[in-house]
Amino acid sequence: MHEELKRNVCDANLELRKRELVIYSWGNASGIDRSTGTVAIKPSGLPYDELTPDKMVLLDLDGSIIEGTLKPSSDTPTHLELYRNFEAIGGICHTHSPTATMWAQACRAIPCFGTTHADYFYGAIPVTDIMTKEQIQTDYELNTGKAIVSRFADIDPMQMPAVLAAKHGPFTWGKNPAAAVEAMVVLEQIAAMALGTITINRDQGAIGNTLLDKHYLRKHGRNAYYGQKS
Amino acid sequence: MHEELKRNVCDANLELRKRELVIYSWGNASGIDRSTGTVAIKPSGLPYDELTPDKMVLLDLDGSIIEGTLKPSSDTPTHLELYRNFEAIGGICHTHSPTATMWAQACRAIPCFGTTHADYFYGAIPVTDIMTKEQIQTDYELNTGKAIVSRFADIDPMQMPAVLAAKHGPFTWGKNPAAAVEAMVVLEQIAAMALGTITINRDQGAIGNTLLDKHYLRKHGRNAYYGQKS
Amino acid sequence: MHEELKRNVCDANLELRKRELVIYSWGNASGIDRSTGTVAIKPSGLPYDELTPDKMVLLDLDGSIIEGTLKPSSDTPTHLELYRNFEAIGGICHTHSPTATMWAQACRAIPCFGTTHADYFYGAIPVTDIMTKEQIQTDYELNTGKAIVSRFADIDPMQMPAVLAAKHGPFTWGKNPAAAVEAMVVLEQIAAMALGTITINRDQGAIGNTLLDKHYLRKHGRNAYYGQKS
Amino acid sequence: MHEELKRNVCDANLELRKRELVIYSWGNASGIDRSTGTVAIKPSGLPYDELTPDKMVLLDLDGSIIEGTLKPSSDTPTHLELYRNFEAIGGICHTHSPTATMWAQACRAIPCFGTTHADYFYGAIPVTDIMTKEQIQTDYELNTGKAIVSRFADIDPMQMPAVLAAKHGPFTWGKNPAAAVEAMVVLEQIAAMALGTITINRDQGAIGNTLLDKHYLRKHGRNAYYGQKS
Repeated sequence: MHEELKRNVCDANLELRKRELVIYSWGNASGIDRSTGTVAIKPSGLPYDELTPDKMVLLDLDGSIIEGTLKPSSDTPTHLELYRNFEAIGGICHTHSPTATMWAQACRAIPCFGTTHADYFYGAIPVTDIMTKEQIQTDYELNTGKAIVSRFADIDPMQMPAVLAAKHGPFTWGKNPAAAVEAMVVLEQIAAMALGTITINRDQGAIGNTLLDKHYLRKHGRNAYYGQKS
Repeated sequence: MHEELKRNVCDANLELRKRELVIYSWGNASGIDRSTGTVAIKPSGLPYDELTPDKMVLLDLDGSIIEGTLKPSSDTPTHLELYRNFEAIGGICHTHSPTATMWAQACRAIPCFGTTHADYFYGAIPVTDIMTKEQIQTDYELNTGKAIVSRFADIDPMQMPAVLAAKHGPFTWGKNPAAAVEAMVVLEQIAAMALGTITINRDQGAIGNTLLDKHYLRKHGRNAYYGQKS
Repeated sequence: MHEELKRNVCDANLELRKRELVIYSWGNASGIDRSTGTVAIKPSGLPYDELTPDKMVLLDLDGSIIEGTLKPSSDTPTHLELYRNFEAIGGICHTHSPTATMWAQACRAIPCFGTTHADYFYGAIPVTDIMTKEQIQTDYELNTGKAIVSRFADIDPMQMPAVLAAKHGPFTWGKNPAAAVEAMVVLEQIAAMALGTITINRDQGAIGNTLLDKHYLRKHGRNAYYGQKS
Repeated sequence: MHEELKRNVCDANLELRKRELVIYSWGNASGIDRSTGTVAIKPSGLPYDELTPDKMVLLDLDGSIIEGTLKPSSDTPTHLELYRNFEAIGGICHTHSPTATMWAQACRAIPCFGTTHADYFYGAIPVTDIMTKEQIQTDYELNTGKAIVSRFADIDPMQMPAVLAAKHGPFTWGKNPAAAVEAMVVLEQIAAMALGTITINRDQGAIGNTLLDKHYLRKHGRNAYYGQKS
């Protein structure tokens, strides 16, 4: 069952490697079928060479395994917390992509320095609060998800499909697993551009709201005019 | 009609990807047949894998579509403004190539720090003024072109085939689409060299006019002696 | 004899090149069969294209050649000193991988700035003391090993499978040659992430012990829960 | 005639591209047959795809063309000046390899920060003096060679097979064209390592003479013990 979901999730995981965002087994992508509340996710620690759709693990939103003989990704509780709280999203991925991770390790939001960023993300890429000792020691992966959800109290996750988990690395999401991967690819690119920008000018400010609105809205929402659709 | 123009423009777009200056559909190249005033440009948002010469959109210099069923690049009004004002140019391209974009985001001209730069560009790569709220909200892409043209009031575009659109990214041009792409490849390279140069020496000055003249003019103009021609 | 050992060591050396951690003949990997005290190592200065298992040199722990017609790596005395003192390790490698070498040249330990680092290395990557004139002039390679062993007086080499030889470059190790190579690949990655992190925030501190324990121990030791084993 | 020389020079030029040190026609390699005083060099501005041994231009040490229908590299007078003054060298190459060029643009010698550098270059990579207006305007390429020779008044070119031409880029040489290319590859690598080193520690000093001697001399000269020869 859920053959298409498993294939899409497998493809998304393989795309992460093809885009050179993961080495070894670092990283994972998942997807959800909202009609049945079924989540498909990469098995834990499995090399990318061995990934096939039938190895994806199926779970319900409470984390009970529905199908699959392998253990799901150790980050599964983070994914589930995001699916439970961000109802519009259909796919999630997590990597340690190098430049986004640099910003996460520095616990700094990535300012929106230009239109490349504004084309995909409606403002600075947020960074979570640093987790407390208690949050780390008990239910760490679940609490990682809660830290993200808490950070998005006033942010629409569909307008900001990325977050930096402090001292850890990026999570991205989208309407489906492929969109989550695209957000990860772009995040890595804008993280690198932002790093170069502050190297040139340490005090560079973010772009103004007018330019942010122009670029974000020409690609997103009802008045979008980029591309061939609508 | 205009089969050669469409093929050259298609090739130029594909070359941008081959040179790793674009990901997804970020970027566009165009060309013009000056004898008929016909411009060919990449369709908006189309993946590079799907680009073929027959998908190029043909327009006149006022933006009326002459041939093609797809929407032209959303940046078309910028290209047309440049063709209308820079009469010697035959091709234009635009990308978000990472290092040139870092300089654009920092709103800093790229100083001419060495002969690699001087071989192609006759001085610092200029950056446009930051656009006003009004310029952004109405006819944004046209106004991007006007900001470039305004910046070139005292610059010969054939001696400076590149500009950084502030907080956005680079545009380059040349006598034909292939030359515009070559200028983009070189711009990315010298942007990276310049970034490293200021990392080594924050206060490094530009090269003097004598060396600039020597290198630029040994490759360009009537006394050029580089290469096999003339 | 020791066909499997020689093949594993040869594979490890070739993997270093495949991972783009070595150019020319820079770098070497070795392995040990603890049951017989036999070490296999790459020949000195041999191009990677010419490496085959039968060219690996076999030595005992005192450095006497058991098998092989080629001279062993000039770094052999360093490897042997580590095998003699770090009894749990089964493979070693040495490279001049670029970013790890930058830290070694700066004589700075790589702080543990995030979970990517903590997943593999239990704390900051140590750097050896600068060697004295006498240590360099006589038995240099042996003394390089002694400097590493001395630095690990209070560190468990299986929890910290990497070191930076001051002004030189990294050595890594593991339970076998393949694990030593994986540690080298990861070291290069976290060295790059750390360099970016201090570029963003020069004063960034290391992660706390709670997060370090959480990540290191979820992958290592008896309570590990990452991956498919146990 | 000089078929082997032309083949070696052609191979050296192609290797520069394979090692990703040149784009377009940026760069050139040459070689000399000391028995006849014949120099072979790449034609000016020719794309690398079109390079074949029979297109190499043969000249004598005064610059008179002996064989070949194409114009020699515009940098030929620089090469000839080096061959006339550095009698032990058998090959030269010149590129705009990115990181070495950053140091050249900053007019800074590359300090010897570690053993990777010391394995190939016996001290800091020197940078030429900035050329005067007169030196640039008349016989520029010849004067580039003179500036290098002048800089090497007290340096043995066989112990320091590289130089940074100020505001321009690197030249390297060696006993033959292949050795010149290897020096260029290594120069680019150590230039990058040095850039990272000063990013980590702006005040990092060079390695001491004892370590420099140890590494340089274990690979070079009569007491060398690295590799399989002697």
